[in-house]
Amino acid sequence: MSEIVTISVDAMGGDRGPDVVLHGASLLFANHKNVRFIFHGKQEILEPLLKKYPSLISISQILHAEKTIAMDEKPSRALRQGRGSSSMWRALETVKEGKAEIAVSGGNTGALMAMATFCLRPMQNISRPAIAAIWPSLRADIIVLDVGATVAGDAQQLVDFSILGSALARALFNLKEPTIGLLNVGVEEVKGLEQVKEAANILAKAKNAGFRYHGFVEGDDIGKGTVDVVVTEGFSGNIALKTAEGTARQVGAYLRDALKADIFSMLGSFFAAKALRALKNKMDPRNNNGGIFLGLNGIVIKSHGGTDEIGFKSALELAYEMAQDNLLEKIKEGVKLFPSQNVQQDVQQNNNKD
Amino acid sequence: MSEIVTISVDAMGGDRGPDVVLHGASLLFANHKNVRFIFHGKQEILEPLLKKYPSLISISQILHAEKTIAMDEKPSRALRQGRGSSSMWRALETVKEGKAEIAVSGGNTGALMAMATFCLRPMQNISRPAIAAIWPSLRADIIVLDVGATVAGDAQQLVDFSILGSALARALFNLKEPTIGLLNVGVEEVKGLEQVKEAANILAKAKNAGFRYHGFVEGDDIGKGTVDVVVTEGFSGNIALKTAEGTARQVGAYLRDALKADIFSMLGSFFAAKALRALKNKMDPRNNNGGIFLGLNGIVIKSHGGTDEIGFKSALELAYEMAQDNLLEKIKEGVKLFPSQNVQQDVQQNNNKD
Repeated sequence: MSEIVTISVDAMGGDRGPDVVLHGASLLFANHKNVRFIFHGKQEILEPLLKKYPSLISISQILHAEKTIAMDEKPSRALRQGRGSSSMWRALETVKEGKAEIAVSGGNTGALMAMATFCLRPMQNISRPAIAAIWPSLRADIIVLDVGATVAGDAQQLVDFSILGSALARALFNLKEPTIGLLNVGVEEVKGLEQVKEAANILAKAKNAGFRYHGFVEGDDIGKGTVDVVVTEGFSGNIALKTAEGTARQVGAYLRDALKADIFSMLGSFFAAKALRALKNKMDPRNNNGGIFLGLNGIVIKSHGGTDEIGFKSALELAYEMAQDNLLEKIKEGVKLFPSQNVQQDVQQNNNKD
Repeated sequence: MSEIVTISVDAMGGDRGPDVVLHGASLLFANHKNVRFIFHGKQEILEPLLKKYPSLISISQILHAEKTIAMDEKPSRALRQGRGSSSMWRALETVKEGKAEIAVSGGNTGALMAMATFCLRPMQNISRPAIAAIWPSLRADIIVLDVGATVAGDAQQLVDFSILGSALARALFNLKEPTIGLLNVGVEEVKGLEQVKEAANILAKAKNAGFRYHGFVEGDDIGKGTVDVVVTEGFSGNIALKTAEGTARQVGAYLRDALKADIFSMLGSFFAAKALRALKNKMDPRNNNGGIFLGLNGIVIKSHGGTDEIGFKSALELAYEMAQDNLLEKIKEGVKLFPSQNVQQDVQQNNNKD
């Protein structure tokens, strides 16, 4: 049997409460018998709830945490008030203490990022963490980062994200030298924001860095799968992610309407029911749920706050895979390939040139 | 019969050459008998070509322009070398001279924007022009701007874009008070870029401005149609637009694959053929082709450079509608409703407060 994987779970995070969390966990355990859970939250709520999922009882531990971080709490306030005593903080601390491989929360993203950065601390040579999304493309799954950890990043951060993203792609997709593209408004060298052009200059010079720099990519290259890793700062990355989600839902709604247009269409959708179900499944955002916090001394998976047990199970599944792969060690090795110090010198030189 | 509408066309712009342009024009004329064209480009190419489209001969004028701006030309260089003598410049100048209502080009976007700004000049009280896209949503068509004219705009520009976008929505959709949303990474007040938060402060205080400020919107609100006008700076706007295009294509490809999966699916798609064709048509980017340059003393439509005659006809159709609506006058009136001077004072006051 494979090694035990322990996941530290903020059982109080998310819009729908702890039932969704425990239900999702029981679904994961049904697939992976070597998983163990540490649930953080109010004992008086979690203990009776656990009885609803008997398969979890012998493989789970409940650790009491008095506070729950509200979904709309300001990150700075959440950090000030929830440090030590909240289910979110305790879920992270358990990873820091080495008692679990990875933490999962469906709570407030800003608060989780602030707490994770404070608790787990940025990796050596990485200035700020990023949130990476695994994005299905027409070619293969790819990685897009940052999808919302930091808005308005500079060139240094874009280079850091390239290092982190390529390390993740090597570990998760077993690629030797993933291709990296910088998201821009055109593929020509003259276009775009200064910091993106500056990052391009640095990445183009990278040697033996564990990735191959492809150049600029545009928004439609994400869906095409032009590169393995798409790098951008968190504002445009978040907007790309949510715009794509919105567009997929929109097209799905158009398709449903079209197939109800007349009796022939309805007959057609009856015959094609299996194919249409498979398509629906493929496009179901619940099956692709989980932002990966990268660049810290510990990995954290952020589940969508509004998801149900199927979605939460996806986030746990992602955490499980990443813990199995020993991803953190692989990322740390990856970061050493293209040390940030050189990068900083390059940025310095580039600035001096201007 | 309705009034004559004259469209000034850069016949040399686009990747596929002037045949696509003239073919598209003949398709528009088939629908609208009151349209007239002025084509700019090499006489020795355009004159023989026009004979291919006999319906155009009596309603078109060819004006010789020696130079053609290359699709990959740097905007600054295009402006320096193509001013006066290029088909692009001449197409714009004809609007400036009042000989045509609107200009259309499928050429190099950056060069067209640089030339248009230089030739037509920004409207009074508007600091920089924007490119607006008409975006189909689940509710109705909406407007998104800026989709690529200016990267990294400040608060003042976002306010300008709100004024321009709402004026366009009033004119194009016959709305009395369109709703405006600022694109952001969250709907909470504390989130996002400083300039976006600053613009929100100004817009929230606007009174009798010809629009209603809704607040922040996220990427998925575009497809939902949460507001009539989505305002953002050109970097994220361009990425949102292209990501949506890519996602729509991706979902279309998934659907095609799904419907070929087995004999039942194929049978199903046979019965639903009409509905699926209607859907394909709805999602065809050629039917929604044309970026609208707003904020100048003259309106310019940018067609996608790679499109065919169907796509170019869409861009001409958009130009035709906007000229019919007397859009420029309506926008100028709209700009007066919420004059930029007040805005600048507000920005000043906000800055002083910080």
